[in-house]
Amino acid sequence: MEDISYITIPAGFKANGVASGMKCSDRANINPDTPKYTYLDVGLVASDTPCTVAGVYTSNLVKGHSLVRSIGIIESKKKVRGIIVNSKNANAAVGKAGIEDADFIAGAVAKELGCSPDEILTASTGVIGSRLPLDLISAAIPELVSGLSSSEETAHNSEYAMMTTDTVPKEVSAEITLADERTIRIAGQAKGSGMIHPNLATMIGIFTTDADIDADLLKKMLKDAVKYTFNRVSVDGDTSVCDMVVVLANGASGVKIEEGSEDADVFAEALRSLCEDIARMIASDGEGATKFVEVEVYGAGSEADAKLIVSAVAKSPLCKTAFYGMDANCGRILTAVGYSGAKFDPEHVDIKLSGLLVYKDGVAADFDEDEASRLLHEHDIKVEIFLHEGDCYDRMFTCDFSHDYVTINGSYRT
Amino acid sequence: MEDISYITIPAGFKANGVASGMKCSDRANINPDTPKYTYLDVGLVASDTPCTVAGVYTSNLVKGHSLVRSIGIIESKKKVRGIIVNSKNANAAVGKAGIEDADFIAGAVAKELGCSPDEILTASTGVIGSRLPLDLISAAIPELVSGLSSSEETAHNSEYAMMTTDTVPKEVSAEITLADERTIRIAGQAKGSGMIHPNLATMIGIFTTDADIDADLLKKMLKDAVKYTFNRVSVDGDTSVCDMVVVLANGASGVKIEEGSEDADVFAEALRSLCEDIARMIASDGEGATKFVEVEVYGAGSEADAKLIVSAVAKSPLCKTAFYGMDANCGRILTAVGYSGAKFDPEHVDIKLSGLLVYKDGVAADFDEDEASRLLHEHDIKVEIFLHEGDCYDRMFTCDFSHDYVTINGSYRT
Repeated sequence: MEDISYITIPAGFKANGVASGMKCSDRANINPDTPKYTYLDVGLVASDTPCTVAGVYTSNLVKGHSLVRSIGIIESKKKVRGIIVNSKNANAAVGKAGIEDADFIAGAVAKELGCSPDEILTASTGVIGSRLPLDLISAAIPELVSGLSSSEETAHNSEYAMMTTDTVPKEVSAEITLADERTIRIAGQAKGSGMIHPNLATMIGIFTTDADIDADLLKKMLKDAVKYTFNRVSVDGDTSVCDMVVVLANGASGVKIEEGSEDADVFAEALRSLCEDIARMIASDGEGATKFVEVEVYGAGSEADAKLIVSAVAKSPLCKTAFYGMDANCGRILTAVGYSGAKFDPEHVDIKLSGLLVYKDGVAADFDEDEASRLLHEHDIKVEIFLHEGDCYDRMFTCDFSHDYVTINGSYRT
Repeated sequence: MEDISYITIPAGFKANGVASGMKCSDRANINPDTPKYTYLDVGLVASDTPCTVAGVYTSNLVKGHSLVRSIGIIESKKKVRGIIVNSKNANAAVGKAGIEDADFIAGAVAKELGCSPDEILTASTGVIGSRLPLDLISAAIPELVSGLSSSEETAHNSEYAMMTTDTVPKEVSAEITLADERTIRIAGQAKGSGMIHPNLATMIGIFTTDADIDADLLKKMLKDAVKYTFNRVSVDGDTSVCDMVVVLANGASGVKIEEGSEDADVFAEALRSLCEDIARMIASDGEGATKFVEVEVYGAGSEADAKLIVSAVAKSPLCKTAFYGMDANCGRILTAVGYSGAKFDPEHVDIKLSGLLVYKDGVAADFDEDEASRLLHEHDIKVEIFLHEGDCYDRMFTCDFSHDYVTINGSYRT
């Protein structure tokens, strides 16, 4: 599926991504051998016709200006034509100018597309506290809009343009056959690597579908879809100011999804599954990550306790450096469970590391160190915690904490 | 003061530290040129006469067995003669054997000292989930006890024996002159480097005083002393299972400190000040740390909000790697303030970096990058956050997040 996933698979969508010069100031001499995400920095996903739209946003009290503008449009239930995303600059914490800058960019896109500015959503990701370089972005917009197409190449370019410290593009799609041979398509793309933590952190996700869905139903399905997927990814515990996931539904398939129908269930599950696929990709591509780690808790006494426990383990620098070092230092997992704030009896805790029992009834099990080492040398690591307090479950996706995380974040801005 | 601080400065205390072979298995061939903390691993601080004692302990639900045993003794208000501490092994999560092992060690010390086993507190720090090597420790106890003295050398040895990933010893002392020329002395020593977070995390602190103080008053003063000192140190946000701070008061000065007296205020402030000195030392010596960072918030709307904010900034891997990289990426500070969970108006936030205004009313200030860079190249960095919501203040001590943190913790156990 990876090979053929891109954002314009649903009918009636076009996309493009261009280099404005924010990522690479020497636009005339871009080396074509370097990955496209090193120079593409402004992306656009647009529909031929107006779309219903739903969004979920960062819980950070400080919100970027491009995001604040988009929230206003989405929550007013207006239909939209597309979303422009820039990387390299978060358009955050610059005061009133930030909203004006976002308006200016949306206006420039709208003029080229022939629609109203408030039909264009804006999103920005990157460094906080600097004005957007409007000259560079506005100079790039004509090329950005005129190059829009439904081709695989321009679709991928729109994804590359969103990437910051991501090292791999994150694109998914599904074609769904409903009753009576009717088909609809959903596609998604995202950026997100560091600063990923519930809720949503520095990720931007864009989903498109050619189903015809009412905005309220779309919002409900999106909220359900992110709950155990994007809201269960932690790379470093930090939560950014710019994050959002949006779904644009243009109805180009001619298939209407009605609330309460079997079709709605099928669609909701497909959307959730695609969100999970991207959530796993984000954790795997965490800044400097060498491991993908899934933390699961079984038998918690409450949903809140279950979430506290998976969060504590997934955020623990000591657990994450041990995964990096491939050291079966499972006492650190028990320690994190202990300080999570969840209520449980320490003498009834079992812990498995990729299936190997390492703690039984709160006591270190006499496990085979060679087997543990072998399991920790796998790329995918699973931690399962059994509390025997109740029947609540939760899980979180994360990665390890490596030297490269420190290198990347010690000098991201400069 | 650093040069002359050691735990036996108060009258009537003796100490010692020896190499049992846990840190260095080849005891016969210890290289005398290596630092003593690389091989000393069992320490003892003892009073000639019984002491009142107060303690504060980790909030982790999982508690080490040596700690659980000590809590039982301290909370029963029994008087004690001393405390034995071993490093390298936390004596945690090994089941019932853990308490038996701690009892065995205390019994061996008591036999040599000629006191009751429940007059000897136990503390252990190190790896979780392995039984203590009783053969090594019990073989070392006769030498440990027979070598007890009030000399500076053996006192330092008791500190070296507690150190794990610490790179510098942490010892403080004060002589206090009360009214009528009466003097008392307080001294303290601690270990703690990684896994330091409120409340108390992997630190062990021992204070001695020759004042005569009732156990209840001592406990009250200790709780007040740790509140804004040890409970405001964060190295990596992890909280360990073995932490405690104890104060032993043997009355050898003949000076009685009465509750509610002026003497009690003077003593409490001296104890608090020594705790602050050690808290700063612990943050400065955080695993892999190259910077000492003090985070302060002014004008928070509530004490809870103030604590949320300093915790969020002090724990943020993104802020901490930026301090390491000496990058004035102050948007990360604003971001952490935003996701802290505290209530405030983002448009009224000011932030200073070592005195330089970097955010004003939530907007990036036009500060001098060269000046910011110069300030970040200092070892001590101060972050001040002004919320203008109320009059609550808090502060936290932390350090940066370096490559060495990852190296140290990727392979601590093996």
